[in-house]
Amino acid sequence: MDPGLGTTGWGVIRAEGNRLTHVANGQIKTDTTMPLARRLWNLHSALIDVIRAEKPDSSAVEEVLGNSNAQSTLKLGQARGAVLLAAAASGLIVGEYHPSAVKKAVVGTGGAEKRQIQAMLGHLLPGAKLSGPDAADALAVAITHAHHLASAEGMMRRARVMA
Amino acid sequence: MDPGLGTTGWGVIRAEGNRLTHVANGQIKTDTTMPLARRLWNLHSALIDVIRAEKPDSSAVEEVLGNSNAQSTLKLGQARGAVLLAAAASGLIVGEYHPSAVKKAVVGTGGAEKRQIQAMLGHLLPGAKLSGPDAADALAVAITHAHHLASAEGMMRRARVMA
Repeated sequence: MDPGLGTTGWGVIRAEGNRLTHVANGQIKTDTTMPLARRLWNLHSALIDVIRAEKPDSSAVEEVLGNSNAQSTLKLGQARGAVLLAAAASGLIVGEYHPSAVKKAVVGTGGAEKRQIQAMLGHLLPGAKLSGPDAADALAVAITHAHHLASAEGMMRRARVMA
Repeated sequence: MDPGLGTTGWGVIRAEGNRLTHVANGQIKTDTTMPLARRLWNLHSALIDVIRAEKPDSSAVEEVLGNSNAQSTLKLGQARGAVLLAAAASGLIVGEYHPSAVKKAVVGTGGAEKRQIQAMLGHLLPGAKLSGPDAADALAVAITHAHHLASAEGMMRRARVMA
């Protein structure tokens, strides 16, 4: 999952043996004219609906460092809280990966550019039609999580992985 | 409500005519050894339990500006998201007040010190035993919200106000 107050991306992949396949991806937008608590609630509810529909076995988000704009960091934090709660409410463990780990898992180098990641997604998940850049980022995190689970378990077990 | 990932303060007052009375206050702490999503879930759940028990008619939080420490702003944002969601999940409107509005409502001047606020709480809510500084901050926001509702409605209606 790639949290954002305006747009949150999500992506679901299946990890089976060494094979990753795309299941679904999407973007959840909130209405900027609504009060903050309502926007967070709509985001949270929409994500819970996705989790119920897709039934992932595990989930993940990217670690965020925040930036020098305190207001945008605060907004991101609030959206991230709503996203993490949706996963926790659904009984999912939430893996967290540093942006450089995501780049390394998808492109092979921690210093990859965002457009390289999106280009690689086409190779790693053939046939996936991306809903947008936030959904693409979410799929990249899902791939990272699948790799991590595979090495953590010493084998690729069959699992639906959401991020 | 005074959100924080480590400690969230809450306070409930009753506003009846011109009279404010203390109902309850408390602090919710989360276990720093738990994963972030679990801490947010525990905070969210504990606050929903308080809302169910106290049945407020309305709720409020302080506006936060964030600070130059991006990591602490991000943590605060995530906790604030969990708190706002607990209110929204309970069907409560959440008022937001600038810190200077809270100081003005409680002490009479927007530049009041935190210790002046705590001292005034003893006068405004006699008999209230404070659970800690975060619960005190929450009660100050509740008082601000009650004042705001009273002037917005042109009269003090009987209402249980939580913050």
